[in-house]
Amino acid sequence: MKKRLFTPGPTPVPENVMLSMAAPIIHHRNPEFMEILQQVHEDLQYLFRTTQPVVVMTCSGTGGMESAISSLFGPGDKVITINGGKFGERWGELVRTFTGNCIEEKVEWGTAIQPERIAELLGEHPDARGVCLTHSETSTGTASDIKALCAAIREASDALILVDGITAIGAHEFHFDDWGADICITGSQKGLMMPPGLALIAVSERAQDIVNSRHERPQFYLSLKKALKSHAGNDTPFTPAVTLIIGLAEALRMLREEGIENVWSRHARLASACRQGCEALGMRLFSSSPSFAVTPVWLPEGVDWKAFNKILKVGNGITVAAGQDDFAGRIFRISHLGYYDELDMLSVIGALEFTLSDMGVPFEIGSGVAAVQRAFLAD
Amino acid sequence: MKKRLFTPGPTPVPENVMLSMAAPIIHHRNPEFMEILQQVHEDLQYLFRTTQPVVVMTCSGTGGMESAISSLFGPGDKVITINGGKFGERWGELVRTFTGNCIEEKVEWGTAIQPERIAELLGEHPDARGVCLTHSETSTGTASDIKALCAAIREASDALILVDGITAIGAHEFHFDDWGADICITGSQKGLMMPPGLALIAVSERAQDIVNSRHERPQFYLSLKKALKSHAGNDTPFTPAVTLIIGLAEALRMLREEGIENVWSRHARLASACRQGCEALGMRLFSSSPSFAVTPVWLPEGVDWKAFNKILKVGNGITVAAGQDDFAGRIFRISHLGYYDELDMLSVIGALEFTLSDMGVPFEIGSGVAAVQRAFLAD
Repeated sequence: MKKRLFTPGPTPVPENVMLSMAAPIIHHRNPEFMEILQQVHEDLQYLFRTTQPVVVMTCSGTGGMESAISSLFGPGDKVITINGGKFGERWGELVRTFTGNCIEEKVEWGTAIQPERIAELLGEHPDARGVCLTHSETSTGTASDIKALCAAIREASDALILVDGITAIGAHEFHFDDWGADICITGSQKGLMMPPGLALIAVSERAQDIVNSRHERPQFYLSLKKALKSHAGNDTPFTPAVTLIIGLAEALRMLREEGIENVWSRHARLASACRQGCEALGMRLFSSSPSFAVTPVWLPEGVDWKAFNKILKVGNGITVAAGQDDFAGRIFRISHLGYYDELDMLSVIGALEFTLSDMGVPFEIGSGVAAVQRAFLAD
Repeated sequence: MKKRLFTPGPTPVPENVMLSMAAPIIHHRNPEFMEILQQVHEDLQYLFRTTQPVVVMTCSGTGGMESAISSLFGPGDKVITINGGKFGERWGELVRTFTGNCIEEKVEWGTAIQPERIAELLGEHPDARGVCLTHSETSTGTASDIKALCAAIREASDALILVDGITAIGAHEFHFDDWGADICITGSQKGLMMPPGLALIAVSERAQDIVNSRHERPQFYLSLKKALKSHAGNDTPFTPAVTLIIGLAEALRMLREEGIENVWSRHARLASACRQGCEALGMRLFSSSPSFAVTPVWLPEGVDWKAFNKILKVGNGITVAAGQDDFAGRIFRISHLGYYDELDMLSVIGALEFTLSDMGVPFEIGSGVAAVQRAFLAD
């Protein structure tokens, strides 16, 4: 049976990217590899919309988040985090681990923090050294208005702005320089259409100044200072995941060829069609501020998640993501982040129809896929 | 021109391992992947000769070393490190970073520390909490007698024994359990015949007890405690480099098929032939205690490294490793770590003959390759 992956990381990897990584391995201190890394650095600047360095680290996205927190802040530094899901929660865990002074603002799952509330928080905590945001919260499929949030923070304070862009980069419009972010992180296995193993971190001028002027913290492998120093010479401080960087070069070439504005609008279009398809099948959407990366949907009343997922996966070859924490067994999440097109949305909604039909859930046959088609053709 | 890599990491990757990583990507929380990870865990125990867990982390070997130091020791803990080259030096940097109390024993490059000296050091520092060793020092191609060193440490003290096995695992005989090591680390791009991106860390029972009983240090991504907890469920705490783990499963299958004793003796045999080939060409060996992973050789008198390396690389397609630090431009290093066989040794010594001939260095044509053949056929 054909297998199709609709999870928000790993996401599908284009065949040519996979094959580029199967070439004989080269040494990371060879001029040939350093040229590839230079091209990767340039293409990442294009992707993040920045003239500042975007460093490549061999680790997961969480490793990239740790690198930022542990390189910018020290014990006692007050940092505000916004927790509206699993990944906002992770910012809090990291801040508590490395500074011990976290002001965590909880936000109801499926909703986004508003700029006014951020301004209030900074009014209450004028000594905050940083604010940690999540552009697209993967666990809830919820996007925040990062442009407005950055503007509100910049107006109220000098706090550094750290953006978890892990499932947003490539899916949502984002301008690192123009919007005034200080850190933005993504992982290779997301909008970059790559296997996992690399974190990419953009660093603003003022964040670089802080990283470079502070005493070395007790950190080594995830040191942003070391990474920035090597970046300047198109190098890495430690042996990087050579094959993954070679694949990344190919994936970035594809994104650049498509054009970043087109990549963003493709994600918006697929997300909208996915939502319309689900709603046409009588399923309720979870998020009030939907992400373009992943669409979370309530399971229909009375439908058992395990039985539903088994039919979807074993009977139809489709892997979606389960709900997490309080929403395990109650919602599921359809990814359209990365290497997806219009016909993929038709496939996943079609498979949902097969599954609902199999389970005897009443719906009008064809209504889901027809809604997907209308979404595209009415565009 | 055919290209051949003779560097001690990355090392050549077998074609079937490369192709295994080019299959469509799967999700890391799928039962299919967890079965692969379980097999990897079992095969790593076979490789390290241990019944204790060997965890897989997505980072370089240095990340693995940091994980061990920062998970086992805290501020003020006295740790002895042996610095006989770049990687012994790295142990010292890590200990200074995370405990601030490093007793660093310098050893002349190209020589190995003796068990008696370790016992003396432990006599001078009975409060040492750990001793950091390097099994095969890559920068100097020098092997230490880890069995004897472990025995000396165990007899003198309760200090934990940390072994950098990065270029030793798979090349040198090693018995984690029987020899009484507490930590041993390797990287995927070494004897494991894989691209870089994974660190593998074996953890003894008493090291596990310490890791699990201590308060969480300010660490997160490289936490050995988190890694061990996930390992028990054949899982990883953060998204792992899925494709690299799939490749690792295939590489480990090959090593197991060959049999670990055969893998060790192959490395000893290739290293010996390489040394005999170099000496037959009139080149002097650098190390008094040669590693089976990499053979460092003095450049012949009057030969310029850059010119020599250019002919070797551009004219013959051969990449070897340069000398480091004080020995840059004075020695070069030939790797036979990982996916190499007898005919590869013939190739590299043959290419050395072409290069020396091109540069007008006097030697008897064919004497190098004949010495290689004699080494194998006299075996």
